[in-house]
Amino acid sequence: MKQKLKIVSGSVVAPQGFRAAGVFCDIKRLGTGKGSEKGGKPDLALIVSDTAAAVAGMFTTNQVCAAPVKICMPRVKKGTARAIVANSGNANACTGRRGLADALEMVRFTERALDVPAGSVLAGSTGRIGVPLPMDQVRAGIIDAGVNLGATAWHASSAAEAITTSDTRLKQIAVEFVLGGKTARIGGICKGAGMIQPGMSLNGRRPAAAPLHATMLCFLTTDAAISATALQQCLRDAVAESFNRITVDGDMSTNDTVLVLANGLAGNAELTTQARGLSTFQGALNHVTLELAKMIVRDGEGASRFVTVRVAGARSFADADAAARAVSNSALVKTSWHGGDPNWGRIIDAVGYSAARVIENRVDIGYSAPGSERILWSLKAGQPTQATFRQLCAAVARPEFDLHINLNLGRSGALMYAADLTEKYVDFNKGDVSDPGSLGG
Amino acid sequence: MKQKLKIVSGSVVAPQGFRAAGVFCDIKRLGTGKGSEKGGKPDLALIVSDTAAAVAGMFTTNQVCAAPVKICMPRVKKGTARAIVANSGNANACTGRRGLADALEMVRFTERALDVPAGSVLAGSTGRIGVPLPMDQVRAGIIDAGVNLGATAWHASSAAEAITTSDTRLKQIAVEFVLGGKTARIGGICKGAGMIQPGMSLNGRRPAAAPLHATMLCFLTTDAAISATALQQCLRDAVAESFNRITVDGDMSTNDTVLVLANGLAGNAELTTQARGLSTFQGALNHVTLELAKMIVRDGEGASRFVTVRVAGARSFADADAAARAVSNSALVKTSWHGGDPNWGRIIDAVGYSAARVIENRVDIGYSAPGSERILWSLKAGQPTQATFRQLCAAVARPEFDLHINLNLGRSGALMYAADLTEKYVDFNKGDVSDPGSLGG
Repeated sequence: MKQKLKIVSGSVVAPQGFRAAGVFCDIKRLGTGKGSEKGGKPDLALIVSDTAAAVAGMFTTNQVCAAPVKICMPRVKKGTARAIVANSGNANACTGRRGLADALEMVRFTERALDVPAGSVLAGSTGRIGVPLPMDQVRAGIIDAGVNLGATAWHASSAAEAITTSDTRLKQIAVEFVLGGKTARIGGICKGAGMIQPGMSLNGRRPAAAPLHATMLCFLTTDAAISATALQQCLRDAVAESFNRITVDGDMSTNDTVLVLANGLAGNAELTTQARGLSTFQGALNHVTLELAKMIVRDGEGASRFVTVRVAGARSFADADAAARAVSNSALVKTSWHGGDPNWGRIIDAVGYSAARVIENRVDIGYSAPGSERILWSLKAGQPTQATFRQLCAAVARPEFDLHINLNLGRSGALMYAADLTEKYVDFNKGDVSDPGSLGG
Repeated sequence: MKQKLKIVSGSVVAPQGFRAAGVFCDIKRLGTGKGSEKGGKPDLALIVSDTAAAVAGMFTTNQVCAAPVKICMPRVKKGTARAIVANSGNANACTGRRGLADALEMVRFTERALDVPAGSVLAGSTGRIGVPLPMDQVRAGIIDAGVNLGATAWHASSAAEAITTSDTRLKQIAVEFVLGGKTARIGGICKGAGMIQPGMSLNGRRPAAAPLHATMLCFLTTDAAISATALQQCLRDAVAESFNRITVDGDMSTNDTVLVLANGLAGNAELTTQARGLSTFQGALNHVTLELAKMIVRDGEGASRFVTVRVAGARSFADADAAARAVSNSALVKTSWHGGDPNWGRIIDAVGYSAARVIENRVDIGYSAPGSERILWSLKAGQPTQATFRQLCAAVARPEFDLHINLNLGRSGALMYAADLTEKYVDFNKGDVSDPGSLGG
């Protein structure tokens, strides 16, 4: 079902009753040993709802997970919240008891600064692993952000910038739609560029289609009225089709977090899991999360291509997913994309070693423009077609294209949004050992 | 049990009664459309036993496997063979019925050229995927190699060179040892540099510890007398500890093949599965396969580091294997090795997202010189140690080092031999779209 969505500005402050801020408080200082950088990039974000909001969340399924993830999980399950505080520059992961205490202090200090109920603030962190949060900076940042909250697009952009690390672009979006006769909005910001193949759930149980890794943070706001249970269900489904379908480098982070606050100020009748309007909300949420997820892949570290890997004809979703992930994470496939090389040999090789059931002389492999059904097949039933090398090169020369793989064994399909693997990715991630601050993920 | 092994020259012709040849017959010509390159690198190898030999083999478990793999599997199961014919420049994979017919013609033509019994020749191919073998060249090469067979080190080296593709070095070894009072030898050649994470078995069933991908070929000879059953058992165990423990890029090839011929000319009493001397033979075979496997990693495409990832304290071998493979194939871990960056955050992240059971505050991570027990721990019980960044950098600055990961949850362990990920790997594998011959694996 397609509904009308209007793109609006303001991302997380586009919905009624939300304010945001992003401020610089020099969170990397302690880690790097370098002096404070006056007026640096914002590194602490606050997003606040004027009224109590329903909340839902999805978190990394990495067994090694960061302190903010650990404190958020039980808080999200309570179903209501008021605000999100997040920082970049330090992941607060592998920081032990001190890290948990620091994450707790971060949310409690925010509760006091904003004068909101105990237990109503959630947190997210991204950056260096294994270094304690510099709490003096964090506290100063929270106070600064608290007094600078606002509802302009600039405020939202500041928050979006505050959560970036290796990102080269801000990632934000907001949509407006009609819900039960009322105008509702959903907005969001996210970050992520490397250590990206999220596999999120609420309870640490890995989804059936188990992905691999990157830090991504995504904070969503909406003024739709929706019960916490329905919101969690919608978020789970939206993440399953967006953030859990992307990969930059196949690495699942310790910190992946998606949070959504729904304050109900749009005035629609509250959506429950049985409500008729739920599919409208779901459609809008899906659009927002998918657009944000694609922004992460397009801004993948060093990435020069955006490839949608579409597997069809699998015996089961698990098979389709396994084949799509094997191809999307193959170093040889990803380097050939980088080179614009239509190397179907590497693709069928990856399909063949995946956990998916494959019969070589059934496999079709082809290319199309994004979303197009006009497919140039390079392989049909396991055999090269008449397509010329020149034609195939032209098909993969595009910065964005779809790769179609039909196993012709069943009716299940899956897709992945993947980046290529470039020299720039390697150069960026090999680290600068003169700077211990480059550690982390 | 350690036995005395003496390194000798001659690799596959070091054992009695073996001859070899490597000749240039321009197998890439048809694929590239380029003219014949007079006197190019040898691309067709023959290895021949003067008498009937027991045979054993291990093959890729990729569901998309090359024609020579398909025809070798039943031939190996017969238990005896006389010769191996192998080519580089063309993988004869994804070539359908024609490919199977070509592979069969390749072994049958060799049988006639050498005047050996029908069904006694085995084959291996590596190179471009999806292009028919140029059979005129192959036949000419077989005749040429047949008349140029010899038992000097030069002949063995020519055969070793004939199976190389992106390899920058020849990979060969031979050892001599005492077996039941007789002097016996095992020799071997192998190739492999990219598309490397073999997971081989004899029957296409993936080993419990399932690896991922690269073309590697390895041909072994021995003059030990051993039954085919005992030889297969020894080869399976040797491969499990060598080729199935290496990874360059995590990609499992369509063509991975290990073959061993044992002609019994050493004159020892034939080893059976119950024989006392079997452990001596196993030890020598393990040494040969492990040394060859390590040569592949050291010559990995673009590789600048050789890292032995040692996981201990896992609840099961499957857990230890999963953790070791996750770390060894993580793009972020591999790029940090390249940069000499002691980034334990990425390591514990990869351990955490692996299928292994992990409890964050039990994990130890440290470094040592190869094989040394003097470990510099960077993480103990999930917390950074007092080791300084400078000390850790020194530990990972070595071109070869061991990475120790103790999960402290059980008694099982596993190790992997892994290469780093460099700009050179990406540059090499992004392909040259002006040369369709660069396709394949």
